[in-house]
Amino acid sequence: MKRRPPVVELVCVGSELLDGKADTHLGHIALRLRAAGLRLSRETVLPDSLEPLTAGLRCALRRCDALLVCGGLGPTFDDITREAMAAAVGRELVFSPRLYAGIRRMFARLGIRRPPKENRHQAFLIRGAQALANRVGSAPGQWLAMPRQPTLPSAPVVALLPGPTREMLPMLEREVLPRLRRACGRGLHSQALVLHLCGLPESVADQRLRPLIRQAGPELDFTILSNTGQVDFHIFARCSSASRSRDIIARARRLALRLVGPHIFGEGPVQLEAVTGSLLRRRGLTLAVAESCTAGLLAARLTRAPGSSGYFRGGVLAYADEVKRGLLGVPAATLRRHGAVSSACARQMAAGARLATGADVGVAVTGIAGPGGATKTKPVGLVFVAMSGPGRAIASSRLRFSGDREAVRQRAASAALRLLWSRLKRNEA
Amino acid sequence: MKRRPPVVELVCVGSELLDGKADTHLGHIALRLRAAGLRLSRETVLPDSLEPLTAGLRCALRRCDALLVCGGLGPTFDDITREAMAAAVGRELVFSPRLYAGIRRMFARLGIRRPPKENRHQAFLIRGAQALANRVGSAPGQWLAMPRQPTLPSAPVVALLPGPTREMLPMLEREVLPRLRRACGRGLHSQALVLHLCGLPESVADQRLRPLIRQAGPELDFTILSNTGQVDFHIFARCSSASRSRDIIARARRLALRLVGPHIFGEGPVQLEAVTGSLLRRRGLTLAVAESCTAGLLAARLTRAPGSSGYFRGGVLAYADEVKRGLLGVPAATLRRHGAVSSACARQMAAGARLATGADVGVAVTGIAGPGGATKTKPVGLVFVAMSGPGRAIASSRLRFSGDREAVRQRAASAALRLLWSRLKRNEA
Repeated sequence: MKRRPPVVELVCVGSELLDGKADTHLGHIALRLRAAGLRLSRETVLPDSLEPLTAGLRCALRRCDALLVCGGLGPTFDDITREAMAAAVGRELVFSPRLYAGIRRMFARLGIRRPPKENRHQAFLIRGAQALANRVGSAPGQWLAMPRQPTLPSAPVVALLPGPTREMLPMLEREVLPRLRRACGRGLHSQALVLHLCGLPESVADQRLRPLIRQAGPELDFTILSNTGQVDFHIFARCSSASRSRDIIARARRLALRLVGPHIFGEGPVQLEAVTGSLLRRRGLTLAVAESCTAGLLAARLTRAPGSSGYFRGGVLAYADEVKRGLLGVPAATLRRHGAVSSACARQMAAGARLATGADVGVAVTGIAGPGGATKTKPVGLVFVAMSGPGRAIASSRLRFSGDREAVRQRAASAALRLLWSRLKRNEA
Repeated sequence: MKRRPPVVELVCVGSELLDGKADTHLGHIALRLRAAGLRLSRETVLPDSLEPLTAGLRCALRRCDALLVCGGLGPTFDDITREAMAAAVGRELVFSPRLYAGIRRMFARLGIRRPPKENRHQAFLIRGAQALANRVGSAPGQWLAMPRQPTLPSAPVVALLPGPTREMLPMLEREVLPRLRRACGRGLHSQALVLHLCGLPESVADQRLRPLIRQAGPELDFTILSNTGQVDFHIFARCSSASRSRDIIARARRLALRLVGPHIFGEGPVQLEAVTGSLLRRRGLTLAVAESCTAGLLAARLTRAPGSSGYFRGGVLAYADEVKRGLLGVPAATLRRHGAVSSACARQMAAGARLATGADVGVAVTGIAGPGGATKTKPVGLVFVAMSGPGRAIASSRLRFSGDREAVRQRAASAALRLLWSRLKRNEA
């Protein structure tokens, strides 16, 4: 029998989430579910209001195999997740003396003899539910396995979790995920791989990867994400055996390498700055920057990688032309003849960064981020990046970016990083 | 007749959002809607998959007066929001030659004569929809006012917006909110004000502002948000006349000034770097940085403000101690005696940044961002910021931040910016 993948949904409860006040747990929970071989099908954020919350939960239960609900388990009047879920599944709430004893013990540890009467709410369980231990706060979670019903596609399981991250995450990890694996694993084995590409716009990457993307089916699935000059290509497999998942991923990977290989800078949880850093480290090279329009964005990104102090020496931010001359040694004649936004200036800045800091490699950016500063021949978005070293090597490129000031700056920093990566990689090959 | 408040829902489309890869726009959009006198009733995150997306949109349309949908308007195979919404409202997609001409012009400006054929998808409109201009990217938005239907509580309006924040926000502001106010405003006049505070933790700001927050009622409403060392206090009014809204806001503002006045650095859409830039510009002062652990974050933030080239000269990124000595003139004795992470080093770096660039004011950061680099006396998170000038003035402060490498770096850059702002303001007063 061919089985569909389990449908898991998340509901976050809290009017403050809809008022711009706080983040939901979507990112945290999604990543932990994937590590358990499960994927979220939907997230819904609902207010602390009994009627829409109950209706929203009831709808979700009709769609899914597992429903995680975060928030609204506290002691105050607007914590109504217990009541709403009880109504949604048509069961009553039952006072648990054992749970209340636990809440009293927790307060006793804090030196409070009788819990406020509001906390009595927290000792009510949906009939048939198991309590989930909360080692951090006063709100116990609940786990409910529903019997198979004729109107539902499957017998759903429900987990109620507290809202605060520091209470929710340990309960998810220790109490909910193990139960969820048993309930929804269904003998399916999942595997995922992400390939990171650079130097290729999203739509072009998509076009080139078509022969692979066309193979998507029940066992294989893709997503393309793009972010400031980088494209992430995600490959997912979900098969009846672990070895088949591995094979399918490996085959997809081989085809992707044939289609866009030279643009792939890494696989898995890596960033371009860390990959570039490894290339430098492997060859024992040090690095410096000279930045004009990006004014530190490139260096800030290079040093995001832990351990970057092993190869990054520093650099010069040269916004004013006198700083380009004084600290980077860009000749006045270059500035006069070609201007500060020119290939010649970028190359001399890159060389100057090496000289000023004693680094083996220098990388430079100069450009017009806008909104002001454009001339007849030099529009907003015109950027030059250059790289000097190792040794006598020198390279530069001229780029033109669209977008506002911040977008041009971010893209310019990305382009400089790409130049650095591609030259270091070519030298190594 | 008392009318129920309009029901506004948000749908964010993207499998990546459910895979833990990116943030949704919930916070951004919630705040902007509140400023327009509207509140979100629900957010739903749905995958790039035609069937569940169409079903989810159809459900949402049955519940609400206005439906905002973000994401899935790009050119690639998994951008299917247009198709799903067309199916949900039972209308067809129509090719718009005018829209396609606009897309071609956008590519032409980038020097690409023919857009990739994938971008043709983006020229399809749901029948009856208006196109919403995208000044930043290639994905036009869509606005659709549905006729009143017997099965629905009202005649819903629908807005389709692109997923990337920098494309979504301007379209929301310029194209969607004015239409939404006309469609759902219902004669109420809304007004909003945000006060930006720095140098005060969120809980302390909340406590001091209590006398004002207690005045919240049907016409007046507040939210406190905190983000890397800055606290934003939002005030919302929604009254039957514009003048009453204005009065209520003005009264709340006066009380806020009495309660936390010295910590307020700005009002409305301003950022600390721009306010600081204005202080420099007003006094004709120029600025330079010397950054160690932040490695460009501070300068990148200072130069986010357009026109910052008027006062920002540049600076030195001194990761390696030899760069601190060579380019900033930090004496070897200081490094030997106090170490690179010390008040003495920070002060000499700030002075060195002025000397090296000829700026009137220098600001410096040095610290241990982690995960490595800690010693017995200098833990991860220890940061020194310093400011030298104008004239002979010198100031520094010692800080201790929690969080991971990136959090420490961001907080350190914010602290340096706060030092700069508070000293410049004090000098001015």
